[in-house]
Amino acid sequence: MSSSQDLSRDWKIGITMGDPCGVGAEIIMQALAEAPARQRGHFIVFGHQPTLARAAALAGLDPVFATPDAPGPAGSIVVADVALASTDWTDGQASAAGGDAAYRFIEAAVRACQAGVIDVIATAPLNKSALHAAGHHFDGHTELLAHLTGSKKSFMLLASDRLSAIHTTTHVALAEAIRRLNPARIVDTVVHADAHFRELGVARPRIAVAGLNPHCGENGIFGTEDIDHIVPAVRQCREMGLDVSGPISADTVFHRALRGEFDVVVAHYHDQGHIPTKLVAFDETVNVSLGLPIRRVSVDHGTAYDIAWRGVANHRNMKAALDYGARMLGQARVFGEPADA
Amino acid sequence: MSSSQDLSRDWKIGITMGDPCGVGAEIIMQALAEAPARQRGHFIVFGHQPTLARAAALAGLDPVFATPDAPGPAGSIVVADVALASTDWTDGQASAAGGDAAYRFIEAAVRACQAGVIDVIATAPLNKSALHAAGHHFDGHTELLAHLTGSKKSFMLLASDRLSAIHTTTHVALAEAIRRLNPARIVDTVVHADAHFRELGVARPRIAVAGLNPHCGENGIFGTEDIDHIVPAVRQCREMGLDVSGPISADTVFHRALRGEFDVVVAHYHDQGHIPTKLVAFDETVNVSLGLPIRRVSVDHGTAYDIAWRGVANHRNMKAALDYGARMLGQARVFGEPADA
Repeated sequence: MSSSQDLSRDWKIGITMGDPCGVGAEIIMQALAEAPARQRGHFIVFGHQPTLARAAALAGLDPVFATPDAPGPAGSIVVADVALASTDWTDGQASAAGGDAAYRFIEAAVRACQAGVIDVIATAPLNKSALHAAGHHFDGHTELLAHLTGSKKSFMLLASDRLSAIHTTTHVALAEAIRRLNPARIVDTVVHADAHFRELGVARPRIAVAGLNPHCGENGIFGTEDIDHIVPAVRQCREMGLDVSGPISADTVFHRALRGEFDVVVAHYHDQGHIPTKLVAFDETVNVSLGLPIRRVSVDHGTAYDIAWRGVANHRNMKAALDYGARMLGQARVFGEPADA
Repeated sequence: MSSSQDLSRDWKIGITMGDPCGVGAEIIMQALAEAPARQRGHFIVFGHQPTLARAAALAGLDPVFATPDAPGPAGSIVVADVALASTDWTDGQASAAGGDAAYRFIEAAVRACQAGVIDVIATAPLNKSALHAAGHHFDGHTELLAHLTGSKKSFMLLASDRLSAIHTTTHVALAEAIRRLNPARIVDTVVHADAHFRELGVARPRIAVAGLNPHCGENGIFGTEDIDHIVPAVRQCREMGLDVSGPISADTVFHRALRGEFDVVVAHYHDQGHIPTKLVAFDETVNVSLGLPIRRVSVDHGTAYDIAWRGVANHRNMKAALDYGARMLGQARVFGEPADA
């Protein structure tokens, strides 16, 4: 994402409603209800207006809705009501209609982002099997966004004020994550992390690269991947002038980052990054996609079909995602300081 | 270890001094100095008396030393002064003399434990290369204790008041840990965890088994180990009447345990258990060996040669280890409540 984008006009975050049978509409409406009225105009929900109205009613809210073309009075909730082929879906169940709707919300938001109407996309969860049932054969948001933007790769950053981790691999078997480890991928991950934290205003991001094996393999006794792949990658990053340390034993690096020694830790498999970040900030950790030509942040939970449409969904993670989106645009936090997890 | 052991006499914890060139002597003397005087007689240090006296002086302490045969006045520090072939060692450096000393302290403590003189061994760190230099070819305490007690297996539990994890494998390459996963080993780990927490007074320990792959492999899409090994192991444990849940995705199970839902989590590789436990309680997490015929607890850090004998070593973890040892004997905490990490 080029930082040369024109932000002279008002900043805007597009929020996709996600699967209509999940918790997306509820958490969006509750989050926006808690945004200061003067700030609400910075958000555009890409979704299904009647479903959003229903979620508002469930939460005892009575918002004024508006459209992007007629933004309404201050405090209005702006909805880009996306045309759908079918609304034949059922609360809490995966369906082709729901999967297709989720797809169309994202497609509309990506096009708006590419057109410069919005600056960040914040996504509510979708359901993979619903997506497939609708004929959209993507494994999730990441693949879908890559397809819609024509990009080849992306990196998952889990971020909170307390602890952030970026992953060299994510949704692959642990054994496969080990096989995929290589210096080029690690360097690429570091470079994207560095660029992201610079965009957030960190002059010289301090990046730690975790070890893969216990105690970084203890000189090759417990595996050679740390020596073969991580050591040369870190050397190359340092030669590029980046502030990179590692490999650092995974059982200490997150503790050191939490204490403020590093801005972000590079993790080599899904759980290496997910265990620590979600442990210290379960509700505040958001999922950021780096490497795409658009800015994208997401809640880090699923559709939660089992609790959807009962008025019990927790919207703290959605507020954290919207705050992070604002931060990516150099804006102050929209919501208050989070209660500690 | 049978719980029928005679505890009618006073309980005793033996503390091994570890490598004399590391921080062991310092952290032991500082910890014991903070123990209430009336409690000090419950501890016997297996070490080198002149080195312990030197550590006390470095810390500005002036303890009264005593021996197991002549325990001295209340508040004395009881030292079993172990005969050594050589004291030709240097602060902060691995040496054959230091490695041999560390070996002999442990050997003496194990024999005392087997003779019923002490009930728990609490170990200060040793150095593997010093141990090897002295001709004692063990990879660490665990292998050494297994050898001295003639036992074939042990399980590493990392424990604190906040979060505990027991490991099916520890000091092997991550790829090898995956290969070693099998239902029998998981069941054996669960059984030992269950017995340990019952000994600690938990009537029906709640045990969670972590998943191996991201989202437990998501029905086999990201690896089949969760289905092939963990699912049948959990089923078998439940058929045995144990309170076992899992596999539970590793990125949520530790959070749930931290919130109080489980007493202990079964982790399948070193960092899966080490990352979360050390993150939430870095200084308070102790290392407990289960499966040996003796009770053993240890600090969870190394000799720290780089800071040894400078008077700066942190003895909080040693206090936590001694408290855990007391807990294993049904005794109250010796030291005050820990400051949160």
